[in-house]
Amino acid sequence: MIKHLVIIGTGLIGGSFALALKRKGLVERVTGVGRGRANLEHALKLGVIDAIGESVAAAIKDADLVFAAIPVGGMPALFQELADSLPPGALLTDAGSTKLDVIAAARAALGGKIGQFIPGHPIAGAETNGAGAAHAHLFEGKPVILTPLPENRAEDVALVESLWQACAARVARMSETDHDRVFAAVSHLPHLAAFALMEELADRPDADLFFSFAGTGFRDFTRIAGSHPEMWRDIALANREALLGELDTYIGKLRDIRGMIESRDGQALEDLFARARQARTNWIKGKKT
Amino acid sequence: MIKHLVIIGTGLIGGSFALALKRKGLVERVTGVGRGRANLEHALKLGVIDAIGESVAAAIKDADLVFAAIPVGGMPALFQELADSLPPGALLTDAGSTKLDVIAAARAALGGKIGQFIPGHPIAGAETNGAGAAHAHLFEGKPVILTPLPENRAEDVALVESLWQACAARVARMSETDHDRVFAAVSHLPHLAAFALMEELADRPDADLFFSFAGTGFRDFTRIAGSHPEMWRDIALANREALLGELDTYIGKLRDIRGMIESRDGQALEDLFARARQARTNWIKGKKT
Repeated sequence: MIKHLVIIGTGLIGGSFALALKRKGLVERVTGVGRGRANLEHALKLGVIDAIGESVAAAIKDADLVFAAIPVGGMPALFQELADSLPPGALLTDAGSTKLDVIAAARAALGGKIGQFIPGHPIAGAETNGAGAAHAHLFEGKPVILTPLPENRAEDVALVESLWQACAARVARMSETDHDRVFAAVSHLPHLAAFALMEELADRPDADLFFSFAGTGFRDFTRIAGSHPEMWRDIALANREALLGELDTYIGKLRDIRGMIESRDGQALEDLFARARQARTNWIKGKKT
Repeated sequence: MIKHLVIIGTGLIGGSFALALKRKGLVERVTGVGRGRANLEHALKLGVIDAIGESVAAAIKDADLVFAAIPVGGMPALFQELADSLPPGALLTDAGSTKLDVIAAARAALGGKIGQFIPGHPIAGAETNGAGAAHAHLFEGKPVILTPLPENRAEDVALVESLWQACAARVARMSETDHDRVFAAVSHLPHLAAFALMEELADRPDADLFFSFAGTGFRDFTRIAGSHPEMWRDIALANREALLGELDTYIGKLRDIRGMIESRDGQALEDLFARARQARTNWIKGKKT
């Protein structure tokens, strides 16, 4: 049981975590902290939080658990604030979409308190945001990655894990390096690819003609281009090294396909498309690829 | 009323056209022709067609309307067959995903019969195929593009248009050049981009690790990578010129984004993502972009 949970960044992720734990009776009191006063008041009215914290330091004085659910670009400044104010008995976890840089920022700021930080990443993004979008079922069946530190106590990691399990999430543990490498490929790159297509089309003088005939394939392909610009700016910069590599690989593959079209190599195109289709069918079926 | 409709390629598109017209009582008799005997027998059993044609020439002898719903790569050979056998009173239309090349093939083969051919393109792709996937409601609310020829009679174009309208499709007319340019951007390129991502990931030695953490964003982005390899090979080759241009533009945009990440230009990234998001929101809302 968490007596006092403090959510820093009371949006879709932070708010849904609070609601899911409340629903399970696993948290007594939730305080929300955030940049937007209107959003916090909305969260209070909706019962997502029980109180608004006037500052991080004031809010976390008697916290058992602090959940940092803000874009990763804001983490270094937050860790600076927490360095002095995080109470010795409190645990800190996060929802940052990248882990190497968040952990580096935590190490740089938290000093001897680093063991209190259990890094995490719930995979439940959506194109909605704000406390109004939060709901208790957001994490059901969704993956949550924990990338524990050598300084963490096993029982603290187990506690954070059990809270996510109470949200019905599927919790996995991996190294922060593996985390960033995997998500660069299966999440960050696709987001960039969708943003790129959408922005490029919108920039054409006759964009309306194009959009008027875009169908359901286009709609699904570009769904993630509706994601939050600031959050994705932060992710792109935070996972810079892995993403540059992924972009190069992807551009290389597109160039391969371009070459096949240019040289009219129908067999190579059909083979590539068939491998892609088979891989996707296997993945959807939950088979090995 | 169509007395005898012949469907060449009795798959999702051809079968659904037959079922929709039957449901409206606009067709008396449907004959299916195709490469796969099992599929044709399945179509007969399901009532999608009323008879199996043993050959194109035999099937179309007394046809009023012939609907060519095969991958565009097969169109030139089909037009060669039709050059001799298409009866003078019959209309021919198609479902080809590209129009410049299909029309060029028709002109090359059909000679004086070119006026009987009303080129069309229903936009109702799905990742299912075969007659078993066909259903009478497939085209409801979906766009169908007609790219009429100068040689077409106005009343013939109007008849084909009225049949698609009876399927509850939204019919638009445009030039074949505009058609190919628009669909290269909003359909063909996204398909290539999805195939590329899926195939590249599947080819990695640790592909399973990546796929095991791919989430809903990845699922939607890659949905169209489940499309039919042969059909998309044909489209890629048929719309070669426009697609090469689109690929270059898209690769250029990805390179721009790569440059922004490399130079840590957060503002440029955020602005680009925000423009993309705004364009998508406008598109979804049906606004001007």
